[in-house]
Amino acid sequence: MNKPEKFVYLFSEDKTDGDASLRNALGGKGANLAEMSKLQVPVPPGFTISTDICAFYNKDTDLPDWVKAEVKNALAEVEKRVNKKFGDAENPLLVSVRSGARVSMPGMMDTILNLGLNDTTVQGLATKSGSERFAWDSYRRFIQMYSDVVMGMNHSLLDVALEDLKADRGLENDSDLSVEDLKGLVKLFKNQVLDSTGKKFPETPEEQLWGAISAVFESWNSDRAITYRKLNDIDESWGTAVNVQSMVFGNMGNDSATGVAFTRNPSTGEKKFYGEFLINAQGEDVVAGIRTPQPITKEEASEKNMLSLEEAMPEAFQKLVEIYEKLEAHYKDMQDIEFTIEQNRLWMLQTRTGKRTAKAALKIACDMIDENLIDEKEAILRVSPESLDQLLHPSLDPKAERTKLTKGLPASPGAVNGKIVFTSDDAEEAAKKGEEVILVRTETSPEDISGMIAAKGILTTRGGMTSHAAVVARGMGKCCVAGCAEANVDYTKGTLRILNHELHKGDVITLDGSTGEVFLGEVATIAPSVDGYFERFMKMADKYRTMGVRCNADTPHDSEMAKSFGAEGIGLCRTEHMFFGPERINVVREMILADGELERRKALDLLLPMQKSDFYDLFKVMAGLPVTIRLLDPPLHEFLPHTEDEAVEIAAAIGVSIDKLNTKVKALHEFNPMLGHRGCRLAITYPEIYEMQARAIALAAADCVKEGQTLIPEIMIPLIATDKELVILRELVEKTVKEVQSETKTDFDYRIGTMIELPRAALTADEIAKDADFFSFGTNDLTQTGLGLSRDDAGKFLGTYVNSGVFEKDPFVSIDQRGVGKLVKMGTDLGRSAKNNLKVGVCGEHGGDPASIEFFQSVGLDYVSCSPYRVPIARLAAAQAAVK
Amino acid sequence: MNKPEKFVYLFSEDKTDGDASLRNALGGKGANLAEMSKLQVPVPPGFTISTDICAFYNKDTDLPDWVKAEVKNALAEVEKRVNKKFGDAENPLLVSVRSGARVSMPGMMDTILNLGLNDTTVQGLATKSGSERFAWDSYRRFIQMYSDVVMGMNHSLLDVALEDLKADRGLENDSDLSVEDLKGLVKLFKNQVLDSTGKKFPETPEEQLWGAISAVFESWNSDRAITYRKLNDIDESWGTAVNVQSMVFGNMGNDSATGVAFTRNPSTGEKKFYGEFLINAQGEDVVAGIRTPQPITKEEASEKNMLSLEEAMPEAFQKLVEIYEKLEAHYKDMQDIEFTIEQNRLWMLQTRTGKRTAKAALKIACDMIDENLIDEKEAILRVSPESLDQLLHPSLDPKAERTKLTKGLPASPGAVNGKIVFTSDDAEEAAKKGEEVILVRTETSPEDISGMIAAKGILTTRGGMTSHAAVVARGMGKCCVAGCAEANVDYTKGTLRILNHELHKGDVITLDGSTGEVFLGEVATIAPSVDGYFERFMKMADKYRTMGVRCNADTPHDSEMAKSFGAEGIGLCRTEHMFFGPERINVVREMILADGELERRKALDLLLPMQKSDFYDLFKVMAGLPVTIRLLDPPLHEFLPHTEDEAVEIAAAIGVSIDKLNTKVKALHEFNPMLGHRGCRLAITYPEIYEMQARAIALAAADCVKEGQTLIPEIMIPLIATDKELVILRELVEKTVKEVQSETKTDFDYRIGTMIELPRAALTADEIAKDADFFSFGTNDLTQTGLGLSRDDAGKFLGTYVNSGVFEKDPFVSIDQRGVGKLVKMGTDLGRSAKNNLKVGVCGEHGGDPASIEFFQSVGLDYVSCSPYRVPIARLAAAQAAVK
Repeated sequence: MNKPEKFVYLFSEDKTDGDASLRNALGGKGANLAEMSKLQVPVPPGFTISTDICAFYNKDTDLPDWVKAEVKNALAEVEKRVNKKFGDAENPLLVSVRSGARVSMPGMMDTILNLGLNDTTVQGLATKSGSERFAWDSYRRFIQMYSDVVMGMNHSLLDVALEDLKADRGLENDSDLSVEDLKGLVKLFKNQVLDSTGKKFPETPEEQLWGAISAVFESWNSDRAITYRKLNDIDESWGTAVNVQSMVFGNMGNDSATGVAFTRNPSTGEKKFYGEFLINAQGEDVVAGIRTPQPITKEEASEKNMLSLEEAMPEAFQKLVEIYEKLEAHYKDMQDIEFTIEQNRLWMLQTRTGKRTAKAALKIACDMIDENLIDEKEAILRVSPESLDQLLHPSLDPKAERTKLTKGLPASPGAVNGKIVFTSDDAEEAAKKGEEVILVRTETSPEDISGMIAAKGILTTRGGMTSHAAVVARGMGKCCVAGCAEANVDYTKGTLRILNHELHKGDVITLDGSTGEVFLGEVATIAPSVDGYFERFMKMADKYRTMGVRCNADTPHDSEMAKSFGAEGIGLCRTEHMFFGPERINVVREMILADGELERRKALDLLLPMQKSDFYDLFKVMAGLPVTIRLLDPPLHEFLPHTEDEAVEIAAAIGVSIDKLNTKVKALHEFNPMLGHRGCRLAITYPEIYEMQARAIALAAADCVKEGQTLIPEIMIPLIATDKELVILRELVEKTVKEVQSETKTDFDYRIGTMIELPRAALTADEIAKDADFFSFGTNDLTQTGLGLSRDDAGKFLGTYVNSGVFEKDPFVSIDQRGVGKLVKMGTDLGRSAKNNLKVGVCGEHGGDPASIEFFQSVGLDYVSCSPYRVPIARLAAAQAAVK
Repeated sequence: MNKPEKFVYLFSEDKTDGDASLRNALGGKGANLAEMSKLQVPVPPGFTISTDICAFYNKDTDLPDWVKAEVKNALAEVEKRVNKKFGDAENPLLVSVRSGARVSMPGMMDTILNLGLNDTTVQGLATKSGSERFAWDSYRRFIQMYSDVVMGMNHSLLDVALEDLKADRGLENDSDLSVEDLKGLVKLFKNQVLDSTGKKFPETPEEQLWGAISAVFESWNSDRAITYRKLNDIDESWGTAVNVQSMVFGNMGNDSATGVAFTRNPSTGEKKFYGEFLINAQGEDVVAGIRTPQPITKEEASEKNMLSLEEAMPEAFQKLVEIYEKLEAHYKDMQDIEFTIEQNRLWMLQTRTGKRTAKAALKIACDMIDENLIDEKEAILRVSPESLDQLLHPSLDPKAERTKLTKGLPASPGAVNGKIVFTSDDAEEAAKKGEEVILVRTETSPEDISGMIAAKGILTTRGGMTSHAAVVARGMGKCCVAGCAEANVDYTKGTLRILNHELHKGDVITLDGSTGEVFLGEVATIAPSVDGYFERFMKMADKYRTMGVRCNADTPHDSEMAKSFGAEGIGLCRTEHMFFGPERINVVREMILADGELERRKALDLLLPMQKSDFYDLFKVMAGLPVTIRLLDPPLHEFLPHTEDEAVEIAAAIGVSIDKLNTKVKALHEFNPMLGHRGCRLAITYPEIYEMQARAIALAAADCVKEGQTLIPEIMIPLIATDKELVILRELVEKTVKEVQSETKTDFDYRIGTMIELPRAALTADEIAKDADFFSFGTNDLTQTGLGLSRDDAGKFLGTYVNSGVFEKDPFVSIDQRGVGKLVKMGTDLGRSAKNNLKVGVCGEHGGDPASIEFFQSVGLDYVSCSPYRVPIARLAAAQAAVK
């Protein structure tokens, strides 16, 4: 390793060596401090030791002399600028030391503040600040921090000593300790450090500084950091930088203050400066909430009858306004800033892009276009697609207090509160009385549909993101928390037990379907709202979007809604959902229980007119837009009863013996239904099922054609593993459609395509494409099979997986790009190699996830399809992907 | 399309245009007829119209004149050689017409015999043959065949007429009809053909011939043939050839005969001519078994007191001997021949490689080396690896009569008969009394082990090829039929119902574990036997083999056996099987029921010494050969009770409340266990489980090292989906092994590798290889996930899938090369791209399947691993793959 050309970078008002572009050398933090300094924003001066030097650090030896010399020079530059001297008895310079790698990384060393204090300099600080208490309190905090982080001492030892002293004195808060107490503590702490570590607490500031710098470099090689890097493919050689910065204090008396502010209102987006401050306080005091912060502007403060910074420190305020305007103009975005006023002098400690609500984000993006700050493309990138969900569903009031009971799967977004009921009947009864209820079930089944309609929200203790409850609730746009494993329902006792809480019918709970959280009692919610900015913004986004956005919808109601959200067709109509209707489910069961093809065809004949009218209605609603209809997919046992009680009821209803029904249930039982007799496999064994569905589609299309209604039916065959399945079923469907066309003397175009949802289909997509007019990736099932991971069962360990870094995100929420994504890419490329105009889309949950959508754009898909409420999110995400 | 250079190929004694190399033009059949003729073997002369002409055929027009002219010429050549004339009233030439494509293909036209007969030529045939009956019977058969195959008439119409006539006459057999009856039938048939098809039956031989030739070409485009070609990727343009060959008759009197023979004994391999014949008979009479055929050689006939061909027709016999010797010398293999003697003249109708028993195959291969007929490589290719199974397990006596009850899955090979018992206790009791029993269960569980040991065979009604019963039985080398879906066990009534049969305890059944068939009563079996030829042959095969062959074994007994079969290590030791032992299973359950890590570790501490001794024993048996130990794989619920009765018993045994046990069973329940919380996922959530196993392996290794025993432990982590899982678990295992090495002051090499059994692992094998010392493809699970097909559930529709041609073979038996095989290839190539010396093997059922082994050789795997009894099969298959 050779000595680098440059490795210490000063930042200060008059001389700054780095800028934001040098992130690799300076780390994220160092680069940002330099950038602000360059802008002539007052930042406490300091310097960054570059990441190159990390390589020279070795636990057992010192850093090279040339590093020490250069750091000493930089320190002198800082001293000159702040007019203080490191280790000076009269006017000592104190510094903070922080790590800062190219990317933020857990396991790395945290901050050391107040470095440079010792028994001598503490006196100078006392004099200069005019507060002995402030000086000694800073000193004892420094010893606590340093002995823990740098010297590796068990920090609880000093904490105990502090608590013992307070107990002795009968005091409650640290701030009640006297100066003498603090002096005593410093002495005691130093002795304990010696006892515990065998090392004297370093007295000279130089020793302290080198200790802290070494500790930062050492933390790069901590076990936790190494594991994190392995899991996140971060290069060992990157190293960390070290930031050394002079301290400023907002708690040096009544001419000092500290505060945080936003350059525009983060809730509404209004172009008004907005923030809070505290006089004679440190940064953490504003956050801690012990004292009530005061508003910054006069306008705001007057409403609350408080004194504003504008009035209390008009000069500092004026300066702050200049700075925030400069920062917003520079960064071209709303900023979240932190500042400190030390003895009337304003210092900026941080600026970053401010978080905002979706409503504010839309307004700010549109306003900034009008202000000529950004262009349309930039504006589109400024709004998080996910945040649009807030505008379409109620959400929890962020300010409302809450008692969290547990967390399940965020199965369908929104926030609701209501009384618990355990049966569909109770839900309907309560709804009639105008009561708002939450239906709580172990899992739901088709019999619960009316209860799900009546309830405001649904909570299930079993089942995953694709369970009946989850899928139906998302279709309805109704809040649902599913698979809440820590909850237990006892229908007999009528109780819902969640850990130590036992709830009964009528008790109120609140669900947050966007996070999966369940709360005790009523937590206030905020109603959704869209305004003109939404319309304007979405229209603008559509201009740049190149991928189509369709919806997953099975009913005219959902399709209508999705169209109003901008859906450009139906990408997935799951025909099995049509089979669950109360007037149909028993006919479906008769079909399943049929002895032989002839009897099965009889039941199918009854279903034919119902299915025909389903499709007719969808074609009418979608009025010429493509409608992709997936033929029957789930295993037949899903339509049969799951309990003995249900079985008795159903046997009576359809007039078969309970023995026969039970025998069929047993015969159809599967060990792994996900990998069982479903999808196109049903039609290879019972072709008459798909034949009926193809006939219903063709008859509906024929009726539309006769009425002059244009339409594009796309018939989609699920779970294809081999080209041969598609050869056989395409022939069946084509034959049926042609028959209907000839019977009805109509002619219409239609397409026959397939889901690509099994690894084998993606791997042999070139063979399959020969017989397919389009592909639609079923990434839910492709994830389940590609990863060998059952969505309904993964809940039990997926948390550990995400926490330990094995998965960056839940692969069912955001597509696993390196694994499952590889299959999507292979499938698309192979498919188009055989048929270059092959239309390729994706249906399933990933079609509504922004990160996945960006990936799909990179693969070159033609469209994504998602649930109705996610259509706006998908539109924006697709636009962003196109712009990027 | 242009007229081809040559398109009609004569075959005859003195002039033959084609040979075996022209298969594409002549089809398989035509090429073989030409080859025999070229060898100067007497074959009835004829000609082949090449596949090129198929393209010129069009349903609505005639074939071009130049085709007709050329066929006429060829026909004249045939006439000249047989000294008969097509359509001649005195001495008519009769021909057969057959289709023949490059590959044999269902849906293609079958044979037409006796073409050329009409009201005139039938007289000539009667005169020439000296039998009016023979002539008219041939004529009426010809009309039946031709009207059905060529004219598309419903053949049952003529069948009915024939049956009616026999009923009128009160006759039983066709052969009882008089000449007058036959004449009447011919007339009647012709009228019916006219009535039914509206066309006159063609009277001139030319018309008949062109009709038949057109029908062959037309059959190339039948729906069935087209579908078959699509499913089997056969090119439309290949076309079929047409073979026209002069007829010869073995039923022209007592100077005529027909027979079949083998050039060596197909049961024993002895080099002795062996066969049967009938005087005055047609080919099908030998097969039909109405008359008892006579042996061909004097030696054989004398034993049976019958007249041999050698004695009855010494000249023809002598000629036959010359021919068979010529054919064997030419084809260099044992031949199965068919011949006809027409009025003392010998004609060969077919020669093909003769089927033989495994025992015969080994002897013939070795003998032919000694005879300098073939070399070692050729000899190795001559024995079907699958057939070796016959030598290691008892098999059904092929001659024994049988009543088949049903067919389940061929879970473990062999054939056994015995009395039915339904419980393990009954099995043990019967075994003590010396009775042979078959244990019949819905499915087996670890509690049934003692009963499985006591029984001769096992039959289950549920579960697949990897069910408990199947896996344990294969390990024991015990016959098992699993997942017999048509069978129902009622434990309460003590009955086994199979379709209409109700069997009770004590009733005898027979199982064929190699086919999955179940028979009523006792079917005789043949004991297995190996002799010196087996040893000699296998040693020779090993010389050429390049892939290693290991075994899947979990016990010292299995490992010992596998070693005796030639296993070169253990490729898969499934540690979970060790957990099922009666003294362990409850400790395992305590571990599962533990509250928290501390309690779990207590139970694991009890398991540690048991596991240690397991591994110690394996290392001792394998004595320095590699032993691959897979850490715990199945989901924990597999160790918990499945019924309430079991639960009560177990709760008492391990001293927990039944409520607690039931709660745990419920909590661990999974919708898709195959895709659930299993494999390495268990260790990501409960690292202490793998830590215990790694410690046990290391402790066992340390003991071995101290005793001077060499060993190569390979620790295998299952179900890896991401490199990150392996990073975490490799660290855990390494740390543990190092701890033990330091505690025991030992040092030994070990390897840490992973199963590649999920598509994602194969797709990202380059990332995973960085942390793996070896890969072992778990192709069972890779097939399940790659195809989205649960092995335990697929039984219900896999039959339909194989029958309809979607799968060529059961993909769990022989690897799906285009899909799952692609993953194996990608995984291997990617893995070696990251680590070029990566050792790659395969464990799981495909490791013992010859076709799969050939594929693995082509991918470049280092070894295969299979169950002990398949080791010899794998050795031979691997040798063949290397030779090819």
